[in-house]
Parts: sequence; C-alpha cells; structure tokens
Amino acid sequence: MSGGAIPVSVIGLGAIGREVVKALRGRPGLALVGAADPAFVGRDAGEVAEVGAAGVLVRATAAEALAGAQVALVLTASSVADLLAVVDACADAGVDLVSTCEDLAYAPLAAPDLAHRIDERARAAGITVIGTGVNPGLVMDRLPVTLAAACVRADRVTVTRVVDAAKRRVPLRAKVGAGLTPQEFEAGVAARRLGHRGLPESCALVGLGLGWTFDEIRSSIAPVLEPRDGIAAGRVAGLRQSAVGVRGGRELVRLDLEMSVSAPEPHDRILIDGDPPLDLVIRGGTHGDRATVGTVLNAIGPTMAAAPGLRTVLDLALRG
Amino acid sequence: MSGGAIPVSVIGLGAIGREVVKALRGRPGLALVGAADPAFVGRDAGEVAEVGAAGVLVRATAAEALAGAQVALVLTASSVADLLAVVDACADAGVDLVSTCEDLAYAPLAAPDLAHRIDERARAAGITVIGTGVNPGLVMDRLPVTLAAACVRADRVTVTRVVDAAKRRVPLRAKVGAGLTPQEFEAGVAARRLGHRGLPESCALVGLGLGWTFDEIRSSIAPVLEPRDGIAAGRVAGLRQSAVGVRGGRELVRLDLEMSVSAPEPHDRILIDGDPPLDLVIRGGTHGDRATVGTVLNAIGPTMAAAPGLRTVLDLALRG
Repeated sequence: MSGGAIPVSVIGLGAIGREVVKALRGRPGLALVGAADPAFVGRDAGEVAEVGAAGVLVRATAAEALAGAQVALVLTASSVADLLAVVDACADAGVDLVSTCEDLAYAPLAAPDLAHRIDERARAAGITVIGTGVNPGLVMDRLPVTLAAACVRADRVTVTRVVDAAKRRVPLRAKVGAGLTPQEFEAGVAARRLGHRGLPESCALVGLGLGWTFDEIRSSIAPVLEPRDGIAAGRVAGLRQSAVGVRGGRELVRLDLEMSVSAPEPHDRILIDGDPPLDLVIRGGTHGDRATVGTVLNAIGPTMAAAPGLRTVLDLALRG
Repeated sequence: MSGGAIPVSVIGLGAIGREVVKALRGRPGLALVGAADPAFVGRDAGEVAEVGAAGVLVRATAAEALAGAQVALVLTASSVADLLAVVDACADAGVDLVSTCEDLAYAPLAAPDLAHRIDERARAAGITVIGTGVNPGLVMDRLPVTLAAACVRADRVTVTRVVDAAKRRVPLRAKVGAGLTPQEFEAGVAARRLGHRGLPESCALVGLGLGWTFDEIRSSIAPVLEPRDGIAAGRVAGLRQSAVGVRGGRELVRLDLEMSVSAPEPHDRILIDGDPPLDLVIRGGTHGDRATVGTVLNAIGPTMAAAPGLRTVLDLALRG
C-alpha cells in the first residue's frame, strides 16, 4: 500500500487529526495505513477527513490501528497521563510516536515519573517518542534555541507571540475565553478549562537548549479586557499568558503569549540579549493550526532517525 | 587542565581564530588545550588573542596541536582541498572537526570526490567533520529549514541578507570590493579575489532540508554602484550575489546577499511561499563575525553527539 513511502497511522481524528489526514494526501513520501478514533469507528479515515476514500477503516483504539505503521501521529491528549495507553501500544508494535500532546514537549516538567516510565519503555522497545507542534515545539522553543546558535554569549531570551483569535478556529476562541465575563474567565482558569498549555514546557526547553537551569518557572494568566471589535464592552477578548524562567532572582527566559479576538499586529518575536544581540520577527505570526499540522508531518523523518527513548524537539536534526 | 570541560584545539589564529580563543575564556564548559598557526609558533595562544597567557603554546601544524583535544576548531581554509591535511590529522588523533571552511558546509557540491574521501576517512576514524558558520551554516540555510518545519507545504524559499560592510572588519570591505573601480571589481571577481563563498552551498542545504533536487544552482555576482556615504562617485560600494536553485525552469530557492558600504536597512529576511506562508525578519541583521564565533562554539556539543562521518548543519541536533 505504501509503495516506498513511510507508513503512518493517525490516532485521533479531531480537527487537527482530520487536517493531518488531508495533508498526507499531498505528501507522496508518507502513506496513511491506519487510523483510530472512537467517534468514527468503521468509517473510512479519508472520508472522515473529507478527502475521499483512503481505504483505511477507523478503529476504536491505537492498538488496533498500528499494523504496518512505522510512525503513529497522536493528536489526542494534552496531558502525559492520557497518552500512556498509546505509548504502550506503540511500544508493543515497535512504532515511533509523534504527538501534539503539549505536556509531552517536555514531559519531565509536569510529570517526571511518567516521563521516566515512558523513556524506559521507549528505550526497551527501541522506539522514539516526541512531543512537537508549533507552540510548544517550534516558535517559542526550537526557533529561539536555533537562533541562539549565533551567540557567543546569550544573557536573556524573550519571546512574544500575539495571535488574533478571530482568525482562528472556534475552539481557540473558547480556549482563550473570548466573550466571557471577567468572573467567568476567572472560574474557567481555576477549573483549567481556559488557557494555552505548553508555555512552561517551552520555557524549560529554552533553558535546556542554552544550558540554563532555573530556580523556578513562573506562570501567569490574565484576561484581555481592552475594547476589541467583535467583543461586547466589559467582556473578555482573550488572554495573556506568561512563563518566566528565573535563576537567582533574574529572568533568563520570558515567554509572553497573547491570544485574543482582533489582537493588533499579530506576530512572533524573539529577542536575544547577548553577543551579538538578535531581534527576530515573524510578521503576521505563524498560523497555529496549519503550522501544527506542518510540524507533525515534518517531524516524522527526524524522529525516525533519532535515538530511541523519550526525546524533545531539541534532539531532532533537520532531516531524517 | 580541562577539569570536566571539553578540551578544544584552535587551528588558525587569524581574526576569527583569535576571537574564538577570546570567547573560550567565557565558556567554562570548554577548555583550550592546543593551538596551531605557522605565523605565531612558540607564542602563547592567549597572548596572541590578547586575553593574557593561556598556558598553550602555538604549534606550526594541526597535527602537533591536537594532543588531549576532543574537538578541533579549524578556522583557516575556504576550500575543501586546503582542509585535507587537517582532516587527516584529526582522523589520526580521533578528534572531531568543526570548521568555518565555507565549501565544507556542503562539500559534495564543489568537491564531490574530496567529500567522499573525507566522509570515508571520518567514518573509519569515528570522527565527525562539520562545516558551519553564520553564512553558510545558519541564516541562509539552517534557519530557513527550521522555519519550514512549520509548513504543511513549502513551494519556494527566498532569503535576503543585507550587510553594511562599513560596520564590519576591513577584510570584509576588501572582500566585497569597496572602493574599487568597476573594472577592478570585474577583474577581482574573475580572479576569485572578490566575493562571498558558500552561497551555492547554502542553496544546496535548503534543497536537502526540504527534499528538493535542483537541475542547477545558478550563481551571479554584481557590483553595487549606487552612491553611498564613504564611497567616491563611480566607485564600487560592495556586491550583490545570488544563488538560485532551479528545477524545471522554476526557482525553488533564491538566496540574495548584498554586502556593501552604508547598505540601507541591514537585515536578514526569510520568505516561505507555502501553507502557511511565513515572513521572518532579523532586524538589523546578524553580525557576521560575532555570529561566526558563536556558531563554531555552539556546534561543539552537537557535533560530538552526531554520527561519525562528514555531516552538515542539518544533521546537528540543538544540544549535545
């Protein structure tokens, strides 16, 4: 079926998973051979993704969808704990695992014991497990560390990302609390229904890449309450989140993320104080959904080439 | 001597080599244990670099300067042929080699036979050989390929780099022909005294990173003749060079480099036509000399971790 192409299974056919299935059509080097999602069992994965029949029936679980695959693209969980069953299935099948699970971008931060277990299991099975995406996975971690390769001395890294939620999918608007009252926003944050995951993980990765240890990584989240087109007066337009890596009372890494409706001048910016100083801007920003799909597909080759174990994007070379 | 630090030898104590020796002072994880340059034999390498005695006497050849080193930083040659003796010395000593040799950034392009020989020798000796720097090595190859990791589909990559030669070292002004008559400029280009090396190599690396093959890589060079502060009327202010990767008559990669005195708005820009499209700018640009020193030092760990053989920056992970 794959004809020389790398055989791939897609686990999770939510919005991103369906886009991954679509994008696989445009990649002759990759071939869809399996798919799993309890919501679409028995249907053709290509038809679920609205690109016509792919000849691949959707199964209920990852374990049933890995036959013949070399890599599983896991687009389901955000927490490492929710990923354990899939890791076990991939280890049993000897299949590498690439996931958009935000916490997996640097699993030792939120779940050190599980990270250790996954690493042991992956090494024993000879598979590579990696968490990637655009954020975490590229714009706020891999890209600044790549840029810092130019520095004789780096003193401080600041990354700012401004996303206009009005130009993104409805789930993003919900995730950032657009339209809520300030009270509803606070309740949503407290219940962890609101907010972007992975910022502390990116902060940890920048530290890892630059050889910096932190005393702590401070996280904060606040509503955007300025008047914005499309948002009623007094309602929340979105959120501002930060993760700050601190050592000896000094900020070494600061990551600031705004995701809000009608955010002015969306962009990504990486500032490095150092020798030489560097000031990088991605004008208009990096489209989150499209880039997430891109990072997942582009991670396949480098992940297959990486050493077995639980790895991070810092361990990936630029080609497989 | 090295106390847990990685022992390093510096081969070539020209302007960049001396800056590397200086910078090693600020890197507790790296220790200078050897140095070679026929121009400074018998002197202390630290004193040559004007940072005080380092306790390391400069030898005439690399072979004499590798004892105890794990990595040699080779800051001498621009052509692969000039590097062969150092590669042999490193292979004999089992020492990894990081070099700013521009042609080494992708040696198969200009010297396929020598590239094959170096690769064989390196694999047999278990050493890794890598060419890096800021350009080639980062801004026009590694960075665009890293950015393209966000793309579901990349159609075309354009990189523009504008450097103000007035703000750089005197050798750069000479290299770009500043102050020459147009006739002297043409003669200098014909004699290969003028011009920046490594642009076709960067173009080849972008192709390699994106899985593109080219029918040809077209190179061009032209004088900058617009009036510029500090340049007499009718004289050359610098140069514009391009390398363009073409397939089926279509430009897939275009690299445009201007290095001229008083160049307006120095910057680096990476444009990717694709899904999503991306527009990255490094405001003010990346300081060539400082960033060259940075890329060399920061390549040490990743090079030691890479598989033996002749490698490229695309094969390096972001940490050792």
